Amino acid sequence: MLSKSQISFIKSLHQKKYRKEHGLFIVEGIKSIKEFINSSYHIHTIFYNSEQYNLLPKLPANINLFEVKNAELDKISTLQTPQGFLALVHIPKNKQLDQKELKNQFTLVLDGVQDPGNMGTIIRTADWFGFKNIICSLDSVEVFNPKTVQATMGSLARVNIFETDLPAFLTDNKLPVFGALLDGESIYKTQWGNEGLVILGNEGKGISPEVIKKINKPVTIPRIGEAESLNVAVSAAIFCAELVRVRN
Amino acid sequence: MLSKSQISFIKSLHQKKYRKEHGLFIVEGIKSIKEFINSSYHIHTIFYNSEQYNLLPKLPANINLFEVKNAELDKISTLQTPQGFLALVHIPKNKQLDQKELKNQFTLVLDGVQDPGNMGTIIRTADWFGFKNIICSLDSVEVFNPKTVQATMGSLARVNIFETDLPAFLTDNKLPVFGALLDGESIYKTQWGNEGLVILGNEGKGISPEVIKKINKPVTIPRIGEAESLNVAVSAAIFCAELVRVRN
Repeated sequence: MLSKSQISFIKSLHQKKYRKEHGLFIVEGIKSIKEFINSSYHIHTIFYNSEQYNLLPKLPANINLFEVKNAELDKISTLQTPQGFLALVHIPKNKQLDQKELKNQFTLVLDGVQDPGNMGTIIRTADWFGFKNIICSLDSVEVFNPKTVQATMGSLARVNIFETDLPAFLTDNKLPVFGALLDGESIYKTQWGNEGLVILGNEGKGISPEVIKKINKPVTIPRIGEAESLNVAVSAAIFCAELVRVRN
Repeated sequence: MLSKSQISFIKSLHQKKYRKEHGLFIVEGIKSIKEFINSSYHIHTIFYNSEQYNLLPKLPANINLFEVKNAELDKISTLQTPQGFLALVHIPKNKQLDQKELKNQFTLVLDGVQDPGNMGTIIRTADWFGFKNIICSLDSVEVFNPKTVQATMGSLARVNIFETDLPAFLTDNKLPVFGALLDGESIYKTQWGNEGLVILGNEGKGISPEVIKKINKPVTIPRIGEAESLNVAVSAAIFCAELVRVRN
């Protein structure tokens, strides 16, 4: 049984401030938890519902296991419908971004994406299409937000996320810089070459003026109808799909 | 000032049951409301915050206008941060689906899409790419759900939505039936021709067995990485973008 202080500790991790303070984030659902077990992430504790114990894989000895009742899971879960398993996972140290690792590939760069669902969906899509790294500006939504983690469906365990001062990073960068803008070359006609950064902006404001200056290849998804804009996760997906198409 | 019964009436429209009973749904934000004013939809009432009165366009005389205070808007809004304007809009009668109207074009067909945000994003994306119609199975999320309306960003005013018994509709249908499946032809190599239906399935369960039987051209978005699946709004967007690419 969970103590009051355990419950309040886990609930504190619903908030960014305490995730940062304790260096832990929450992953729910056995499928996603398994992805983190089989990754470079370190699991701290897994809380499981006794009825579903048999779904747990063999675990390394350094992972704490804790049986909980459904009512307890309701209290600590970030979901409206808890999924039987909740893990606390260590937040990794922000990896040093080495420009050499970005050569001969395309990398998504997110400038101020704010919606946790969009962020998670972009990570999941990037993973589907085999993109290894995503670079986020410092004002992007935190990727360890429970809604983001949930929306990645386990892909967060595989895609490397780098948070960085974007204008400074782009000043040092030598790769071609593509950017999703409304007045660029058609995405279908763009000469992509074999490497580059693809910048996508904030849901409402788009790419910030400081970052726009660094774009040397503006690219547009042609609009046939009348919607004013596309959702950023949708734009990211169309870029990923097109990059995979032209490289194959 | 809003009476208690007005407030409770508007709040009842947050729920599907009462939207159906009263034939009204809620649109918030002046941008979206303007799209509905300039469409075939009929507006019932617009509630506006007096400070933003000047943002209202000239309105036909048959639209009720009602000034409200911020605190009142907080009570009736479906949003965490109300946007100064809330309109009640009449739900149109479900249009009769005429197969002839679907010729010489591609139409998205949604089989059991459940998430209102996904549904809204698909409508917005379809509008961007100039798709005129979307067909939804009877067990899809209702398009007049406030979260769906919000996610369409006004595009619901332009894209025709048909709710229909999908297996029955597909039995009568003579158009090619493409379907997003995991074991089909690559989307990049598919011979699309110049018309057809493109079926996308439920977030968890995919396309239902009854509907899968009607697909004569299974299509797959190639997976390069390791994610198990794509978000359905992301898949829909990749199909729309690819269809626009090959037709241009």
